[in-house]
Amino acid sequence: MDIYQESVALHKKLKGKIEIVPKVKVKDRHDLSLVYTPGVAEVCSVIAKDEAKAYDLTIKNNSVAIVSDGSAVLGLGNIGPYGAIPVMEGKALLFKEYAGINAFPITVKTQNVLEIVNLVKNVEPVFAGVNLEDIAAPRCFEVEEALQDIGIPVFHDDQHGTAIVLLAALINSSKLAGKKLTELKVVINGAGAAGTAIANLLLCVGQDRRVCEPVKEIIVCDSQGIISRTRPDIVNNQWKMRLANITNKNNLEGSLADAIEDADVFIGVSKGKTFKPELIRKMAEKPIVFAMANPTPEVLPDEAKAKGAFIVGTGRSDYPNQVNNVLAFPGVFLGAIEARAKTISNGMKIGAAFALAACVKKPTVDNILPSALDKTVAKAVAKRVKEDYLKEQKELGK
Amino acid sequence: MDIYQESVALHKKLKGKIEIVPKVKVKDRHDLSLVYTPGVAEVCSVIAKDEAKAYDLTIKNNSVAIVSDGSAVLGLGNIGPYGAIPVMEGKALLFKEYAGINAFPITVKTQNVLEIVNLVKNVEPVFAGVNLEDIAAPRCFEVEEALQDIGIPVFHDDQHGTAIVLLAALINSSKLAGKKLTELKVVINGAGAAGTAIANLLLCVGQDRRVCEPVKEIIVCDSQGIISRTRPDIVNNQWKMRLANITNKNNLEGSLADAIEDADVFIGVSKGKTFKPELIRKMAEKPIVFAMANPTPEVLPDEAKAKGAFIVGTGRSDYPNQVNNVLAFPGVFLGAIEARAKTISNGMKIGAAFALAACVKKPTVDNILPSALDKTVAKAVAKRVKEDYLKEQKELGK
Repeated sequence: MDIYQESVALHKKLKGKIEIVPKVKVKDRHDLSLVYTPGVAEVCSVIAKDEAKAYDLTIKNNSVAIVSDGSAVLGLGNIGPYGAIPVMEGKALLFKEYAGINAFPITVKTQNVLEIVNLVKNVEPVFAGVNLEDIAAPRCFEVEEALQDIGIPVFHDDQHGTAIVLLAALINSSKLAGKKLTELKVVINGAGAAGTAIANLLLCVGQDRRVCEPVKEIIVCDSQGIISRTRPDIVNNQWKMRLANITNKNNLEGSLADAIEDADVFIGVSKGKTFKPELIRKMAEKPIVFAMANPTPEVLPDEAKAKGAFIVGTGRSDYPNQVNNVLAFPGVFLGAIEARAKTISNGMKIGAAFALAACVKKPTVDNILPSALDKTVAKAVAKRVKEDYLKEQKELGK
Repeated sequence: MDIYQESVALHKKLKGKIEIVPKVKVKDRHDLSLVYTPGVAEVCSVIAKDEAKAYDLTIKNNSVAIVSDGSAVLGLGNIGPYGAIPVMEGKALLFKEYAGINAFPITVKTQNVLEIVNLVKNVEPVFAGVNLEDIAAPRCFEVEEALQDIGIPVFHDDQHGTAIVLLAALINSSKLAGKKLTELKVVINGAGAAGTAIANLLLCVGQDRRVCEPVKEIIVCDSQGIISRTRPDIVNNQWKMRLANITNKNNLEGSLADAIEDADVFIGVSKGKTFKPELIRKMAEKPIVFAMANPTPEVLPDEAKAKGAFIVGTGRSDYPNQVNNVLAFPGVFLGAIEARAKTISNGMKIGAAFALAACVKKPTVDNILPSALDKTVAKAVAKRVKEDYLKEQKELGK
């Protein structure tokens, strides 16, 4: 039985990887009248008078909705809201295991931006945060942007979770390579959810968040080549236009092979085998390669190493340096929820990445990130996210 | 500390009466690859090919959404979606304790029928059933009716849960009084969610569901008196007009005092102290009185007994014969979900009531219903609901 068949068998046995369990037993009438009527009426009244009390008296204390429309599930694509359930359930399981957060999967039967936005707004009362998941680009950008003012943090993990872990990997990699973050030339292959979020985060890697200091250069490529402000097909795509406007300073045109010239870092968030190993020869000294397509990376680590790559990371657990979102999302949500932040700012994301990078005491080329199984990471990330939020609020005079 | 303060203190301590818990531990990379990527991809693919497989492989197996807009919470009224959370959480707790069902509270930030309907349709994929709760009439009727074809059972507990338990109580009460159900004259005071559902259910109490046999007479009163087809204010209220059309055969006009003449049963689902004890003298022999307003019944049991009531039931746990929805909803959902019924028919509700009534081996005037703490009831109710569903399907040739 391979891992896939074994997983199906496990799911068949479990019939749900999570369950909803009472935190208190009902043994007699007195118990019943405390958890339910008539006693509960007073709890309702307290909250009705002050909505914020829901955080102190209900599951809203630390609950997260994992919302997906099933339009970009793993590498499977648009498989819809039923097929997406197992991923969201798995995520809910990880939320509890890694951060003690009560997360519930909500896979929605619509792929209409406005309907998803309204739905999330309307289910907000019982949740302390929203993890958007596996929603295709550019819909994911539109949905997330429209939900930034609903009063609880809304965070698309495929974007920002990936970007945070990637940045943490980059922080330790550049240290090992003896290069400063702000002096790196980075090429990103893939302009979807992850690629866009990585580019955005790399624009403010400076540790002092009041000064938004970017890496030296970012060039993003998609399947048509380099994203430039003069590429005709970009004009009518507002999301790629935004990317074009904030990256590629010199408006370079051409292919990935043109972009990679003298790059310090290659980041693949596209499809398997889309990066020819020979291109590594064109990169700057001590090339850093993140090939995150799953299950087949853009370039295999052995091939990349053979062509001179200094550090290689992938999304896979069977190679060194696994870039796995589970290193970020539990801690990011835990910190944001404990701080009762209303949004998760770039500063908080950057802080999370530095905290995550610091979890590896002595990074080596084959050990730039903590293990995906290390459950102490979430606390460290949460602590930093919370601190950074409070610092920001102070700076903003709040 | 009274029960209300004690309840607030307990809620403050718990910060949520339910939690979401993994059913499997993640100890190593192998575990992680089974519950999450890459193994989970195969589970997603299986479901993407056949949506029904979600029942076998995910929490959809037995999950219920408890949906409320917070517009009619307990006796507190329209306190909104935050104040409603503690009740829905309590209900989720009871779902698990009594029926092993995984229920999650979704309190929605809209009181617009169409928005609620669309929201429930859109969150359906991860749920096996929907318990509507504490939604004000007539919105609750409109919402429930619009959701009957979404493929999973949608059941407004304030309507049908109450009606089922009430009917069970009536089955045992009429037996004790030596009267046939189909020969009863019943007066219902209150034309909201519960009153309307009770009237509907009493129209088909005959045990052979192919023949829809009603009780002999039903008269419903609201705060303006008897609901008749000629009452001017009824004309523009489609829901009261429906009631007028299916009850009050002789189109009696007047007040509750006029309606109660020779009635065998009084059912109060309105407000405290709205039924003068003296009116019991006007009822037929062995008057049966259900005064379900909470916390103050329409008439106090002692006063009713003093005026000749044969049997008195209330919603309270400190008097005999407590009519408590917890006797119905866990079993009804369990049976419907196990049968994979797409709706909960009147026949299934009637069956549930008879099964519930049969749980009391030897009914007495002070013991017509099982205890609200009796956790064996749900199984008996579920068994009957499932059987009746399968019988119906067979009769329908499915």
